[in-house]
This record gives sequence, structure tokens and C-alpha cells, in this order.
Amino acid sequence: MEKKTLLTHCSDEPGLISKITNICYKHQLNIIHNSEFVDNTTSQFFMRTELEGYFNDETLLADLDQALPEGALHQLVNSGRKRIVILVTKESHCLGDILMKNYDGSLDVEIAAVVGNYDKLQALTERFDIPYHCVSHEGLTRDQHDQKVLEAVNQYQPDYLVLAKYMRILTPEFVNQYPHRIINIHHSFLPAFIGAKPYQQAYDRGVKIIGATAHFVTSNLDEGPIIKQDVIPVDHTFSAQDMAQAGRDVEKNVLSKALGKVLNDHVFVEGNKTIIL
Amino acid sequence: MEKKTLLTHCSDEPGLISKITNICYKHQLNIIHNSEFVDNTTSQFFMRTELEGYFNDETLLADLDQALPEGALHQLVNSGRKRIVILVTKESHCLGDILMKNYDGSLDVEIAAVVGNYDKLQALTERFDIPYHCVSHEGLTRDQHDQKVLEAVNQYQPDYLVLAKYMRILTPEFVNQYPHRIINIHHSFLPAFIGAKPYQQAYDRGVKIIGATAHFVTSNLDEGPIIKQDVIPVDHTFSAQDMAQAGRDVEKNVLSKALGKVLNDHVFVEGNKTIIL
Amino acid sequence: MEKKTLLTHCSDEPGLISKITNICYKHQLNIIHNSEFVDNTTSQFFMRTELEGYFNDETLLADLDQALPEGALHQLVNSGRKRIVILVTKESHCLGDILMKNYDGSLDVEIAAVVGNYDKLQALTERFDIPYHCVSHEGLTRDQHDQKVLEAVNQYQPDYLVLAKYMRILTPEFVNQYPHRIINIHHSFLPAFIGAKPYQQAYDRGVKIIGATAHFVTSNLDEGPIIKQDVIPVDHTFSAQDMAQAGRDVEKNVLSKALGKVLNDHVFVEGNKTIIL
Amino acid sequence: MEKKTLLTHCSDEPGLISKITNICYKHQLNIIHNSEFVDNTTSQFFMRTELEGYFNDETLLADLDQALPEGALHQLVNSGRKRIVILVTKESHCLGDILMKNYDGSLDVEIAAVVGNYDKLQALTERFDIPYHCVSHEGLTRDQHDQKVLEAVNQYQPDYLVLAKYMRILTPEFVNQYPHRIINIHHSFLPAFIGAKPYQQAYDRGVKIIGATAHFVTSNLDEGPIIKQDVIPVDHTFSAQDMAQAGRDVEKNVLSKALGKVLNDHVFVEGNKTIIL
Repeated sequence: MEKKTLLTHCSDEPGLISKITNICYKHQLNIIHNSEFVDNTTSQFFMRTELEGYFNDETLLADLDQALPEGALHQLVNSGRKRIVILVTKESHCLGDILMKNYDGSLDVEIAAVVGNYDKLQALTERFDIPYHCVSHEGLTRDQHDQKVLEAVNQYQPDYLVLAKYMRILTPEFVNQYPHRIINIHHSFLPAFIGAKPYQQAYDRGVKIIGATAHFVTSNLDEGPIIKQDVIPVDHTFSAQDMAQAGRDVEKNVLSKALGKVLNDHVFVEGNKTIIL
Repeated sequence: MEKKTLLTHCSDEPGLISKITNICYKHQLNIIHNSEFVDNTTSQFFMRTELEGYFNDETLLADLDQALPEGALHQLVNSGRKRIVILVTKESHCLGDILMKNYDGSLDVEIAAVVGNYDKLQALTERFDIPYHCVSHEGLTRDQHDQKVLEAVNQYQPDYLVLAKYMRILTPEFVNQYPHRIINIHHSFLPAFIGAKPYQQAYDRGVKIIGATAHFVTSNLDEGPIIKQDVIPVDHTFSAQDMAQAGRDVEKNVLSKALGKVLNDHVFVEGNKTIIL
Repeated sequence: MEKKTLLTHCSDEPGLISKITNICYKHQLNIIHNSEFVDNTTSQFFMRTELEGYFNDETLLADLDQALPEGALHQLVNSGRKRIVILVTKESHCLGDILMKNYDGSLDVEIAAVVGNYDKLQALTERFDIPYHCVSHEGLTRDQHDQKVLEAVNQYQPDYLVLAKYMRILTPEFVNQYPHRIINIHHSFLPAFIGAKPYQQAYDRGVKIIGATAHFVTSNLDEGPIIKQDVIPVDHTFSAQDMAQAGRDVEKNVLSKALGKVLNDHVFVEGNKTIIL
Repeated sequence: MEKKTLLTHCSDEPGLISKITNICYKHQLNIIHNSEFVDNTTSQFFMRTELEGYFNDETLLADLDQALPEGALHQLVNSGRKRIVILVTKESHCLGDILMKNYDGSLDVEIAAVVGNYDKLQALTERFDIPYHCVSHEGLTRDQHDQKVLEAVNQYQPDYLVLAKYMRILTPEFVNQYPHRIINIHHSFLPAFIGAKPYQQAYDRGVKIIGATAHFVTSNLDEGPIIKQDVIPVDHTFSAQDMAQAGRDVEKNVLSKALGKVLNDHVFVEGNKTIIL
């Protein structure tokens, strides 16, 4: 027996749950878990169906094609491990957390490689027997650097790219190669403190809470669909540096929770938002 | 068009979602929201289906009877307001919160009456034009008092009883008249600090967090199925009295969140646990 | 014996704690609690000292004057109840929470009056035997209306004004009459979603957390020193209206916590920030 | 210039803050941060004073001796790194978190060695160039095993021992060698679910929140002074195993926060409680 996840996204109409679950039943597939959501403002229907059984992908998808409204998107995803490449700069806490969670099995993913624009995190990465590519940006234009990073990344054919405190802005050309497949952690509670030095901005404004945001990367900086956010309290005793220090825990926790959702096929994207089923 | 909620609880078998949603579809009922859960340790299936359309309750339930495994429980609940009676002693914060949330519409419920074993909360209740019954326990046995409280309660035929800091233990005879229909707020994070004076117990133990637990009342004190729990941090500067004071907010928030789930038919009970769909 | 709180704010120099506590000791005043903070970026010293004993305010302040650096601010505040006036528009949840907490003693304050630009909350206010002034803004310029509100407010000589979802912007002339004495609750996690309809803005951006901010009002809208912030999680199932509904609880909790700090003389203001000792 | 922290614990009397800060002032020591607490139920005074300057420890402590009430405890602690030994069994998440935080500098401590009763975590430890001692308990009595562990530990003369999911109970003889210097992480919100398999207990009770508790180890199992606690929400979809999995994050976060407090000399112990200044 295999396990697969059926992801359906189409315009809403009566009877969709019944039609889809009927087809699964006829194919003798057992539904382990089913979640659906209708966005009433856009009349869009989303359903995530965890299935178990013997799959004939072709006939199953053909049956669904016939039953669902025109333009329906559906995907039958293997419930196995995904492959990721992680992009980093100099800070180790997010990378370290992913490495450690992968080590102890709480984040079940294949880390194909780590690519950094400095060599600072090479030793840490290699301690976990994962290849590290240092692609320095020095002396290169942004396009040139992105091109070299892409070459390093593409050889692994990853399902997703993870920007684990990668402190450079990707060109639209780069982003378009991995649409909704690049996950970034931004060190603020977006949309507050967009752009550079969010902790300094937070300190200057005198906020009492700081946060982090994991989101898909689109060509608009810090504007992509948000997957997960969380915050921690701060007070007047925190300098901007203290905030950055304290924020590390929330950054890594938010990133790894977002990864858990994405890597297990829970996340749909609709416009600038995510639906997490 | 009407709105009703179908609650299904039966032993698990393949095709249940398909069968139930098919029947709804045949009855031309639109599924607004559907949630299901299978408890794999007990092989029990739970489903909550919000429906919209023109209902023929009799034929719908008959169709379901035929389709579902023997012994299946199903209920078609009107999505209207429920009627509650609130039991109190002397503390006003939980009662006040329910009165105020009912006043501003954020807790949509009919408060038929408040019954207290003191008259301390009579004035507050009557400010909101709700009848108050003072049933003093003085000079009465527990059975006699419970009998008088039951008489005061039963005339309103409430859907649920809410113990909003009612500081007396109900007899099993009382509890059995409202099985899984009495909601209590206990002022600790159960199962820690069962019984009397939980804040004093928490102080004596030196805990760094205090909490509250909303649960259905069964004949075993503080042992009923838990609906909602939450906590707040405390530290060495808190006396037992400070903890009690700080705990009021978490008590009232937990109680009103639990009520929101129960009154909108989200809560199933299985053994000593709740499934909240 | 009396209780008073000494608030000291001056430029930092060695020996300040020693000097101030010495003077208190010589005056035979017992220190119940002492907290201090030095802002290293601005070299400012802040200290809050709860004292108990028989006070000779004049000689105590004179002794402090002599000991502290030039330009030092110090204040000896009676630890009694403060008097507030609450400004409202149509929403009842923040007002109701303050009324109820005042009723049960958990917010120990004298509510001198409630002033609203509609009469919607008159009945609720009067149930708690508090005078309500309806000052309609219809047909008035902003200056004219503010003038009439000020007249209604000033007759009570309040220590603080509380904007409990008062949905109008105060003129600088109004604000300047109560510098750092007007507390507002803004229904977003500032500085995100400044201005109108923050819940709609939050919905449009697809955030996964919404919040509330209590701050002192200055003449720059939504830019005053922040006293308290908190958040709650939301997800794709929340409409803008659902967010507004869910946000009510966090708004009222944040406002009443901020009030607790302000009314017990814990809050210093330095530039655009608060120091809470 | 040096930095040291003065920790004072004595019975309360008037003028203590003044006396202590005076002495510091006379010694030309600058107070960077001062916190005090009086436990009114026990009339005990606690003060933590961060000092900067040129220290003459002997005369400073002698001056304090003369000024403070008889039986006063005071300690002048170097603000440098502490040395710890970590005890483990098989689970890597707490150890991994400490190793990683030490690696990136957010937990500034010298990890002298890791001692485990299995060899499972040897490779991970050695990747961070830290010595690992495997001291198997097989075929040994508890006394014999503890004796061997003590030998491995004592050679490093650690300031503190950290039980990072060390799944064995220490003998009182062991504990007495490191009074208030052994920190344990218990995988429940104590005092709920004392003893073995707390997640299974939590599952069986149907709680809606699970937690973790960091505490000093005393000879009474799970009864030592609590340093830090935190919780996360769970629901009916969590098996006991899912709870254990989800609990890992809260365990490691609670442990590392407790360590941060202990290693920076913020924690006083009074009876069965901690005062954290």
C-alpha cells in the first residue's frame, strides 16, 4: 500500500466534496484525513485529501478531470521526503536548527546541499555530512551572482529552496525559476519593518513585541504569501542587538514550522495568501 | 433556506465521508463546512457538517441510518441560539464576561437565568435584565440544596448549564440530569492542583505558570472531559492572592472560548476526551 | 503610615541609587519595592521607589533636589486611586471590560464619566451608575467638537483620559492639554496597519497574526509611545469581520493591562518610548 | 575594569538597599543593574547587583559583613563563562540545542564534556569537538552507576550539571554533591504528570496543553525548585507520540532559557522555590 496526497483547487460549486470522495471510494482508496476550505469572497474551493491504497494515478486523475469544473487544478503528491537546498549567509541559528531537526528526525527532509555567499557556515554544514557550496558575491553583479547560485542549486533539482537568513535579494529571474517554491524567513512581523535592519527599526519605534515571518518569495520583496508568523515580548531593557539575539529563537521556530507545513503538502497559494489545510 | 449542523459519530469504515456527503448532495443540501476526524486508537469516526438548504429531517436521517454502520449516532442540530442557565457563587468576573459578551453580540446565546447560592451577584445580573434566583445552601444538606437548584434551573429547560465559578460540588444525581451539558471552569491547569484552593497550591509549589481549565462536569470531580485550557506566566513576586487575581482573566477567557465551541456544536465527547471539529 | 511612589528621571551618574535610597532611609521611609533602569544609549537614569512611612514631602523633595544632578525630574505620587474619563464611540467591549473590572475590583480606578460621540453606550454606562455625556460630532468642525468634548471632560479634572475605541482623531490642541495622559487602544500591531480599517488591511495582506497596541496619544496619529502590545493567531478561515471580532478580546486585554501599569505609576516616557518599571 | 555580580540574601530590615549600594559606592564600583525582592511571607531579602570597577573582594565582603544582619549570605561572582557537564541518554534535541546555541554564541558557556549512559549521542557530541563519556548502566546497581558517572563528571569540576533528557533517577548521594547545581528538564508541566511517561499520561487525560519544566534537582524526584516552565497547545488529533514529538521544542526552549538565567547568576533558591532577579 502507498500513501499519496490529493490536492484540489477549483471554483466552488455544490457537491464537490461528495464527487471527489466518491471517486476515491470507487478507486478503493481509503481517506486517512480530509480537509477543505471555501473562500467565500473568491468562491474558490480547496481540498487536501490524504489517501492510502493501491493507486492508478492516470485513471484517478482522469476521473477527477471529468468530475471537476473546468480549470480545476489537482495534484497527486507522493507522501515521501522532499528534497531541499538551503541558502545562507553568515548566521547559523536557522541552518543549525534545520540540520539538528533533520538529524533527530523531527524534520523529515533530504537536505541536498547548503549554498552560502560566505564560507562561514561551511564547517558546520560539513559536520552533518552535507555538501556546502561557497558562491561569493564579491566582484559580481547581482545577475551574475544569482546565475552562479542557480547553477549550484539546480544540479540538485530540489523541490524547495529555503532561505535560512540569506541576506541578499534574489532577482526576479531567479525567483521565477522556483515559483512558490522558495521559502524565506524575514526577521520581523511583516508588514511591520519591511526592508533592512528590522530590529533596529523595532528598537527605534519602541515596540513591545518582535516577531518573524516565513513566506514564499515572489518578485516583490517582503510581499510574498505569508505561511507562518510568531512573536515574542520585549521591553525597554532590550537594545537593538538584544532584540536581534532574542529574535533568533522565534526566527528559527517560525521557519521550521513553516517548512513542516510546506514539506507535508499542507499549503495552497491563492493570490497573495496561503491556505493551510 | 435554513442552516443546520449534522453531527456523526460511528465506528470507522471505508467510504464514510463519501456516503454522508453523497446523501447531503442528493438532498440538495450545500455543505458550507465539513470537518472529520478518525481516532485511530479506538477506530471511531467523527464528522461535523454545516449544511444549508431546505431540510426534510426525517428522510435525511432515515437515509443516513441506512448508510451508516450499526450503532451510529447522528444528530441534526439547528444552528440557532442555545439557551443556558448560569450558576454562580460570589465572584463576578466570569459571569460579567458572559453578560458583557452576550450584550455586545460576541457570544450569541440566550441567558435564561442566573442561579446563585448567595445574593452577591443579583444586582449585576439584574442590570442586564436577566432573572436571578438566590438559592442559599445554608441549613440544607447537599442533596436538598441541589434539589432546589435543579428546580430553579429546570423551569428554563436550558440546553446547557454553565458553572461560572460556582464553588460547590454537584451531586451525581444533579450531574446525571444534564449529561455532557454542564460546563465548569476550574481555576487551575488540570490535572495539576485538583480540588480546593488551587492558587494556594500553585503558590506553595512555586510554579512559574498558572492556568484554567473548562471541562464538562461528570460525577468525578475535576475529572470530566476537558474542552479548553490556557495559562499565563507568574513569578516569585506573586502571592497566592496575586495569582488568584491574575488568574481571573485566563479563567474568563478559557470559559468563554469553551462556550463558543460548545454552543456552536463543535464539541464531541468520547470517553474522557473531547474532539473539537 | 502612608504609601507613596517616588519617580526619578535624570541623567545617569555614579552613586544615584545609593544617594536616593540613603535619603529615603534618613527620612525613615521603608522601601517596599525599588526598580531602576539606565538607558545606555541616552545615559538616562530611571528609578521607581515604593515607599511606606510618615512623609514630609517638602523636605524629602528638597533633599533629593540637592543630591540629584541638575535638571532631574522627581515626583512623589500618592498611591491612591486615579480618576479617569473614558471616551467612546459605538463599540462596547473595551468600555464594558473596564466597567466590569472596576466593578469587581481588579482595576482600582475612579471612573468619573464616559463621553461618547454617539448615545449607543449610554445605557450600558448608566447601568454602572456612571454619568454619560453624549457629545455628537454632527454638524461640527473637528475643532468645535473637540472643544465641546474637552468641556465635558475637564469638569471632572481627570488624571488620565482613556480612548476605549474612540474612533475620532483628536486635534493637537486637545492632546496638548493632557500630555502623556491620554491612552489609546489601536486595533493593530503597530506600526503595521497604521490608520483606518486595520483589520481589512490585515485581511488583504494575509497575515497569520493580528494584534492590538495601547499607546499614549501624541499629536502624531498612531505614533505615540507604546505601552503594551499583544497578538492572537488567525488563519485563512478568518474574514476581515472575523478578525475584527476575534481582535476584540486582545484589544480589551491590552488596554486594561496598559491601564494597570499607567494607573499604578509604573510608566515613564522618554522620547517616543516607554520605560515600565 | 572588571565585572562581577553581588548576590545578597538575608532577613529583611529597613535600609538594606541603602547600606549595600553605599558600600558599593564607597568602593567606587558602578552599579550597572540592580534588582531586589522582599518575600513578605518569609521576611527574606534578595538582591542582585551587577558591578563594574576595580574590585578588592576581601574588603568589600568584609564591609558587607559588618553592615548586613547576622547570617546574611553574600557572594561575589565573576561574570565570566561557567563550566557545565551535560548528562544525556538517547534523545538528541536538548543536547543539540545547547551545542548549537553554544556554537553560535547565544548560550555563552564552556561545555566541558557530555556523559551518557548510551553511546547514541557520541557522534553528535564529537562533531562539536567536545569529549563524550559513555558510562553504561548495564549490569550495575544504581549506586555503582552513579559512582562511575560522578567520577566522569568530577574530573571537569563543573559549575553546573545539566540533565538534557537524562532518563535515570540520581541517588541522593549524587545530588548532594551538587546542591542546587543540577538542572533537569522534565517533559511535563509539573506538578501535573509527575514520574514516568508524562506524554502518555497527558494523552490519557485528554489535556489541551502540554508543557515542560526546568528545575533544580533535589533528592525528591520532580519536586525541586522550578526555574522555568512553558506550554504549547495540543488537540484531539495528537497521539501520545505526536505529543512527545511536539513537546521536544518546548523542552529545549525551556531548558535553554533556564540555563540562561542560572549561568548568568539570576537565580536564588529559597526553600522549594526560585527567585529570579
